[in-house]
Amino acid sequence: MRQSFDETTDPSFGARHLPRVRAKMAEQGLDGLLVPHEDEHQNEYLPAANDRLAWISGFTGSAGAGVVMKDSAAVFADGRYTVQVRAQVDPDQFEILDLVEGGLPAYLERAPKGAVIGYDPRLHSPDALATLKRAAAIAGAELKPVDANPLDLAWADERPAQPTAPVVPHDDRYAGESSASKRVRIGKAIAMAGADAAVLTAPSSIAWLFNIRGGDVIRTPLPLGQAVVSADGSARLFLDPRKVTDALPKWLGDAVSLEAGEALPGALDGLSGRRVLIDPGQSSSWYFDRLESAGATVVRGIDPCALPRACKNPVEIEGSRQAHIRDGAALTRFLHWVDTVAQHSLPDEREVAEALEGFREATGALKDLSFDTIAGSGPNGALPHYKPVASTIRRMETGSLLLVDGGGQYLDGTTDVTRTVAVGEATADQRRMFTLVLKGHIAMATVRFPAGTTGHQLDALARLPMWMAGLDYDHGTGHGVGSYLGVHEGPQRIAKAVNSQPLLTGMILSNEPGYYREGNWGIRIETLQVVTPPQAIPGGERPMHGFEQLTFAPLDRRLIDSDVLTPDERAYVDAYHAETLAKVGPLLEAEVLDWLKAQTAPL
Amino acid sequence: MRQSFDETTDPSFGARHLPRVRAKMAEQGLDGLLVPHEDEHQNEYLPAANDRLAWISGFTGSAGAGVVMKDSAAVFADGRYTVQVRAQVDPDQFEILDLVEGGLPAYLERAPKGAVIGYDPRLHSPDALATLKRAAAIAGAELKPVDANPLDLAWADERPAQPTAPVVPHDDRYAGESSASKRVRIGKAIAMAGADAAVLTAPSSIAWLFNIRGGDVIRTPLPLGQAVVSADGSARLFLDPRKVTDALPKWLGDAVSLEAGEALPGALDGLSGRRVLIDPGQSSSWYFDRLESAGATVVRGIDPCALPRACKNPVEIEGSRQAHIRDGAALTRFLHWVDTVAQHSLPDEREVAEALEGFREATGALKDLSFDTIAGSGPNGALPHYKPVASTIRRMETGSLLLVDGGGQYLDGTTDVTRTVAVGEATADQRRMFTLVLKGHIAMATVRFPAGTTGHQLDALARLPMWMAGLDYDHGTGHGVGSYLGVHEGPQRIAKAVNSQPLLTGMILSNEPGYYREGNWGIRIETLQVVTPPQAIPGGERPMHGFEQLTFAPLDRRLIDSDVLTPDERAYVDAYHAETLAKVGPLLEAEVLDWLKAQTAPL
Repeated sequence: MRQSFDETTDPSFGARHLPRVRAKMAEQGLDGLLVPHEDEHQNEYLPAANDRLAWISGFTGSAGAGVVMKDSAAVFADGRYTVQVRAQVDPDQFEILDLVEGGLPAYLERAPKGAVIGYDPRLHSPDALATLKRAAAIAGAELKPVDANPLDLAWADERPAQPTAPVVPHDDRYAGESSASKRVRIGKAIAMAGADAAVLTAPSSIAWLFNIRGGDVIRTPLPLGQAVVSADGSARLFLDPRKVTDALPKWLGDAVSLEAGEALPGALDGLSGRRVLIDPGQSSSWYFDRLESAGATVVRGIDPCALPRACKNPVEIEGSRQAHIRDGAALTRFLHWVDTVAQHSLPDEREVAEALEGFREATGALKDLSFDTIAGSGPNGALPHYKPVASTIRRMETGSLLLVDGGGQYLDGTTDVTRTVAVGEATADQRRMFTLVLKGHIAMATVRFPAGTTGHQLDALARLPMWMAGLDYDHGTGHGVGSYLGVHEGPQRIAKAVNSQPLLTGMILSNEPGYYREGNWGIRIETLQVVTPPQAIPGGERPMHGFEQLTFAPLDRRLIDSDVLTPDERAYVDAYHAETLAKVGPLLEAEVLDWLKAQTAPL
Repeated sequence: MRQSFDETTDPSFGARHLPRVRAKMAEQGLDGLLVPHEDEHQNEYLPAANDRLAWISGFTGSAGAGVVMKDSAAVFADGRYTVQVRAQVDPDQFEILDLVEGGLPAYLERAPKGAVIGYDPRLHSPDALATLKRAAAIAGAELKPVDANPLDLAWADERPAQPTAPVVPHDDRYAGESSASKRVRIGKAIAMAGADAAVLTAPSSIAWLFNIRGGDVIRTPLPLGQAVVSADGSARLFLDPRKVTDALPKWLGDAVSLEAGEALPGALDGLSGRRVLIDPGQSSSWYFDRLESAGATVVRGIDPCALPRACKNPVEIEGSRQAHIRDGAALTRFLHWVDTVAQHSLPDEREVAEALEGFREATGALKDLSFDTIAGSGPNGALPHYKPVASTIRRMETGSLLLVDGGGQYLDGTTDVTRTVAVGEATADQRRMFTLVLKGHIAMATVRFPAGTTGHQLDALARLPMWMAGLDYDHGTGHGVGSYLGVHEGPQRIAKAVNSQPLLTGMILSNEPGYYREGNWGIRIETLQVVTPPQAIPGGERPMHGFEQLTFAPLDRRLIDSDVLTPDERAYVDAYHAETLAKVGPLLEAEVLDWLKAQTAPL
């Protein structure tokens, strides 16, 4: 699980790989080829074997797109990756364009009239594809599905093997509900949607529904695979046989037939005449084409596992509490190390990230990091999605700030926490900005809200202290988090972008406002919190949801300007620190405990 | 303009009018007929001649729908009108159903298979109709357009005449931009939308674009009519010739041809072969059918006048300031009268509303009320959309609250303001609730926000103090307001309902959080405010929009619990009161001025 700080790509990739892809395109009579970041499984994280965009262009961002034409090519990246994409991609080979402003659709609208541009139907959801097809039509160009992806043909022998990490049971004492019980629930949802069966292609849905975990991608215990679930709760699960562990068949039980991936197309054909639920935002176009040509009636609807997975049950919530206390102790040891050792030795970001990983590993319970640790010293901290690699690593710097954002995958829960610490004496400016961010963080941590409220409606509460000061941050305030699953999980979100999913009891979300002083330093304060059931408020009339804090680790008190906090906000910090001491303290050795007591004393 | 407190309908309407409509339906072979609240002009306010839903059912709410089947009928009303609809509609004739939960679409989904249900294509927008057609298809029923509306045929001689109020110029010193200039701008917008011409059917767009005002509906100076505007800024304006005043042709100028309404169908036919922009959410289905059969290419897009109308120019904003100071003086005299006279004489709601209307009339500048005054004493104040009528009127009551929500139409601006006053001594409970509402009101009045922010994103700021106390209110926080036009104007809004329109400089919105203690009393605090341009904030990095207050009138200080306010909130109230005194005071006679000085003294 150790984090790598190596560059995995090279700007020379474009010059080396483009001609080979173009040769294969020519064989198929194609004038162009779409290269989405997404793979067959439409995950955030890809196995190396499926990172086609990185192989063709060098760009390794977590979102993006590419297009290869006969005489030109382009890579699309969003604002988070402006710097990275320019460092990774050869501008002589690729035009570098904005993914959001215009993006690939605008590019296709200007495609040569009559151009035939290939796409791999396994890599695009119908929702995404519809937009691209409309754009190509405006140009009078054609998007044509390919049977064999020219890029894959060109990649050929150099392409890494598909992952075959073992798939293992995820015990009910972590999952909180048996797979059989979940399948009955999902079967009912399938029937409610007017379908006989559902095709599930999201690995996180496979993992959740069957209570299994795998290791096919980094940082998320996903088993890549697919399933067909019937309205009666029985299912066919398609997994590479090399991944099947001995315990698995018995764990899955008689109602689940375990089959090789090669059996999937035939299984889809067998749905002829049935009504089949499938998610056009999640599953790739290939499934829709296959089902339709088999004579199935496709029922478009969201993945029936998405919402049940997002709403954690009491066992998962209790597991998350325990995982967070364990992780909080590791983080507290790390912060103690920063304060007592690193403040003087000024290590580099790699050493900082490795130290934190070491403390997490020392818990003995860490299965993986939940994402590559962001250790951002000084100006690197001002890049919200920074990840240290060899060429960018900086040392800690007295007078600046260190931002550390990381998390762990534990059997009982997934964590994600950001702390920002002053290196040396904090300046008045740093204290002011940190305290403004903290005010927004506290507003989101303490809000009560009625049933039906979305994260989109709450987002401004975290931003208000910054807005009033003429400041803002260019990322969302909160994302959903899985239970020993993806650290980014939908459908809920707290962000400026419209999101119509109400926040429901048991959803876990991050609360992470920030402030970024470009070229200087960055500030982010992040905890995870879980939506509590609607509860009566004394003197009130309507029960209100709220958030229970899951993450407990001290805030850097040197960065808090108490005078800028209201009495209620000060009381919140004191109570949060007291709870941190009470929960995390018992796990700590004397020296760290003493340090934590000082850090968590009332402001 | 005097407000009527009479009942204009009777629950006997159903029994009297349904058989006549059913007879006309039978002549056309119809099994059913849709009776939307909306008329040919899709306005909030209808002329009496077009209030078909009221004539058939008795229901006079500002939104709703009806359906007449052979042996049954239904009226749909939303939560605001739960009480009113039951009082106005005969339950033996009509099923009374919820407009929002299910509503007419759910009703149509259960229509008899094979039923032929008529609709008048002049009364439904294509957007609304599409939903209804999908619902009918689920039932296997058919929605069939009618040439002659059976309801209109049945209404016949008893139907009031169409209004013919004179249409007059609206001077540039109020409008701030000549019609010629506006038409050039709108022409460019039409070209940008890829069209040669636009069909405008919204009376508010007609009024705004041609700088004219009329009087065809109550409370809003609208001229009912239509226009075809070309991309070069020339236009054909269709108005009933009886409404055309002498000054009008010269006012409109040579680039606008003034024609009778009968010429409109021919004009649409003349757009054959042209690309025509028309708003599918605003214009009725009839226009689309006509344009398509004429061989025009319909370009669906929002009314090109909607956004320019919403963003007031500096002259309109200054006009609004002046209108509000004048109106604020009238309201202050009224509040002084309440405090010195009505607190003792305890008049009824009609007398209260008439007193306020009298003070507004006495300004000498009032053209009309901007809506029927809501004077809600005690439990009536707990109905957010209450309007006093003979059967509901209550007297003011010592120990309770009086809520008064009203506004005026002035040539230079439209006002809308709510004040809540304690009758006798305020209770601790009333003070607590009023102060919580005030905290939300202040949060919305003082917020700063970056470009691109929608009212939907801000809505929670006004609710937060209530949510934290386990309370909420079941209406929006703010609506757009026109300039001597509709008191409810889109596309901007501050509400829980998703609204994707960013708030732009010059948009006027209300800020009106409330609290309603059912069966007891209601609280609402409403001012109008205008979005200010993005301005730098000292120490900040990004310019931020904000709101400038337009409405100035004192708040009832007996209802403010200063201890519940933060120092910043107290400072806001004091500054707002000081500004009220400075702006409104000079217009007042000595006795009222002395009273206002006491009311606006620092808390």
